[in-house]
Amino acid sequence: MTIITLTTDLGTRDHYVGVVKGELLRTLSNIQIIDISHDITPFNIMHGSFVLKNSYHYFPNGTYHLIGVNMLYEENSQFLIVVKDQHTFIGPDNGIFGLLWNGEPADQVFRLIINDAERRSTLPMKDLYVRAMRHLLTGGNIEKISGKISSFRQSTMGRPIVSPDHMRGSIIYFDHFENAIVNIQKDEFESLRKGRKFIFYFKRYDDVDSLSDNYSDVPESEKLCLFNSSGYLEIAINKGNAKGLLNLSVGDIVQVEFR
Amino acid sequence: MTIITLTTDLGTRDHYVGVVKGELLRTLSNIQIIDISHDITPFNIMHGSFVLKNSYHYFPNGTYHLIGVNMLYEENSQFLIVVKDQHTFIGPDNGIFGLLWNGEPADQVFRLIINDAERRSTLPMKDLYVRAMRHLLTGGNIEKISGKISSFRQSTMGRPIVSPDHMRGSIIYFDHFENAIVNIQKDEFESLRKGRKFIFYFKRYDDVDSLSDNYSDVPESEKLCLFNSSGYLEIAINKGNAKGLLNLSVGDIVQVEFR
Amino acid sequence: MTIITLTTDLGTRDHYVGVVKGELLRTLSNIQIIDISHDITPFNIMHGSFVLKNSYHYFPNGTYHLIGVNMLYEENSQFLIVVKDQHTFIGPDNGIFGLLWNGEPADQVFRLIINDAERRSTLPMKDLYVRAMRHLLTGGNIEKISGKISSFRQSTMGRPIVSPDHMRGSIIYFDHFENAIVNIQKDEFESLRKGRKFIFYFKRYDDVDSLSDNYSDVPESEKLCLFNSSGYLEIAINKGNAKGLLNLSVGDIVQVEFR
Repeated sequence: MTIITLTTDLGTRDHYVGVVKGELLRTLSNIQIIDISHDITPFNIMHGSFVLKNSYHYFPNGTYHLIGVNMLYEENSQFLIVVKDQHTFIGPDNGIFGLLWNGEPADQVFRLIINDAERRSTLPMKDLYVRAMRHLLTGGNIEKISGKISSFRQSTMGRPIVSPDHMRGSIIYFDHFENAIVNIQKDEFESLRKGRKFIFYFKRYDDVDSLSDNYSDVPESEKLCLFNSSGYLEIAINKGNAKGLLNLSVGDIVQVEFR
Repeated sequence: MTIITLTTDLGTRDHYVGVVKGELLRTLSNIQIIDISHDITPFNIMHGSFVLKNSYHYFPNGTYHLIGVNMLYEENSQFLIVVKDQHTFIGPDNGIFGLLWNGEPADQVFRLIINDAERRSTLPMKDLYVRAMRHLLTGGNIEKISGKISSFRQSTMGRPIVSPDHMRGSIIYFDHFENAIVNIQKDEFESLRKGRKFIFYFKRYDDVDSLSDNYSDVPESEKLCLFNSSGYLEIAINKGNAKGLLNLSVGDIVQVEFR
Repeated sequence: MTIITLTTDLGTRDHYVGVVKGELLRTLSNIQIIDISHDITPFNIMHGSFVLKNSYHYFPNGTYHLIGVNMLYEENSQFLIVVKDQHTFIGPDNGIFGLLWNGEPADQVFRLIINDAERRSTLPMKDLYVRAMRHLLTGGNIEKISGKISSFRQSTMGRPIVSPDHMRGSIIYFDHFENAIVNIQKDEFESLRKGRKFIFYFKRYDDVDSLSDNYSDVPESEKLCLFNSSGYLEIAINKGNAKGLLNLSVGDIVQVEFR
């Protein structure tokens, strides 16, 4: 049984997800389709990469991960097969792979050869991806449907700007509990901090000068910052809704000052 | 392995979907349940038929499609087994089948015989549908649980009003990206247009006099009209939210004038 | 094939559900994962218990039900394996089991032994639950990973306050159609009522002095009360949105006066 996961911004109100699942089931045998999420914020490759990077490695080796985030038609869109850690990914070369591994290289990267019908398709997951999956699962040579390349596109978007005494990141997305997830990671923060004191600034009047271990470290309805289990900075309110109460938006700047 | 798809307006916050899946798994063996959508706008058979019509034919022949849209109790509700294109559908005779195929006939239509307990059920997908599925999957004769009829109910709702120089349709629903999907189809539009110029009118001050091929054919934040990959008219804003920015609602009139 | 259901407040926008599914699929073989809901209102064990209590018994005997509702870290959180009616449940001992069966005892209750790494985990469904599932599915002795206890925690929250002439309940949650579900059950209502007349009071100016059988028993846009198919009181508006139109919130008091 081959496991195929789906991570998309296609939502669950339209026919798109049904189309992709139907086509996979019609074309391939002995597969199990697992939804990771179809509720990635539309076009938000930072959100998509965050969700996939924090979940894919729990799946068995040999799993295929299909990525459908920010698939808006562009003249020269390219799509990749990427192999890393014994997992195989198919997705657009729109920067999402760079975000997935913080710029680290993958084991192998192939650019899919796209035929004319697929070039005109508004849903490459249905056409191109399924054709590639069929080729791979029936033992076809990967180089028959793609060309090996050295790397995927990087994205600067996902990385904070860093100077000796400052980090300047931004809010990637809001999780289900409306906590803000920020593109500042614990490792980089600590290596820059070198044991110093720090202040997190966000919005005009909000700042936090300590890190919590758990939401309940502060009184109810108080704001806090913590590094979550994925190693990312979170701005939260204990038993509250940080997004609404602090009036935060995706893209808002979050600045760290070390002193 | 028999594939059974679900297309419903039951949502994902309640027990209903769990009940249907549990009952299917308890009663039938060797099945695979696939969610097409549970987020059909409540009671909106145009939305439901649109999603199913654009996805069902991608599934393998022999798939069963269970439809649970607008299942509000009515005294004489009827439920059908419909066979078309080697797919089998079970759903309410509330007009959704007429919309599913633009009024075209199916291969075979059967009206289910409903027993007293099922007549009182608030969730026919759990009782009546599962009993029918069990009968069919264990090789029972379909005419033991239903009576053959000539056709299902049609729905006028789904069709635009047409005169030689005008079409008058309406917004069926908004997709995940908040584009408006309109019940005007490309074939009918072109056959009426006969190469003439045209203007789309919607809301008091909004009109569009050309068709785009892609969202990116107009500058960002500009409105556009296009026929989507399903052949339906879409009102959209490039990288924007047509529903909110144009203040559109389900049911709003969209008029075409040919000149 | 072992069926494992998931009922959580984890939502579908984050990596959590993918993590749990991935870990289950990597660790266990021959399983089928079924989503009951990931859209339980965050932290709302009444909502979670309501959805699970109304769906679990439709699944085949031998099904495992994993509960992940209100899993906020607390110092001494305990997690249970509970066996009842030939179904097995794993969930937090936070009162949800008491609500699940209206305070009735289960067949067997075991408290899981938690190791240090699991104690620090922010997602016990991934670590503790999967380890327990693996132990159980590979034929391990349940008493090796847990200790038998007499009962789970009860929750007073779920029960209305009752006097001879009054019941005082509250709104548990709103279903997909925005009907209010109230923690007043038909059996208790009728046994207290003893055939008398009654009035339901909610909000300052809203009251209802009869019970409907169906939404359509009142004119469109009128409010009504009915006991739904799960036996719970519902406040609804025929073809309308009770939550918005009556300005109701979770936790609002609903009072019954018998006279």
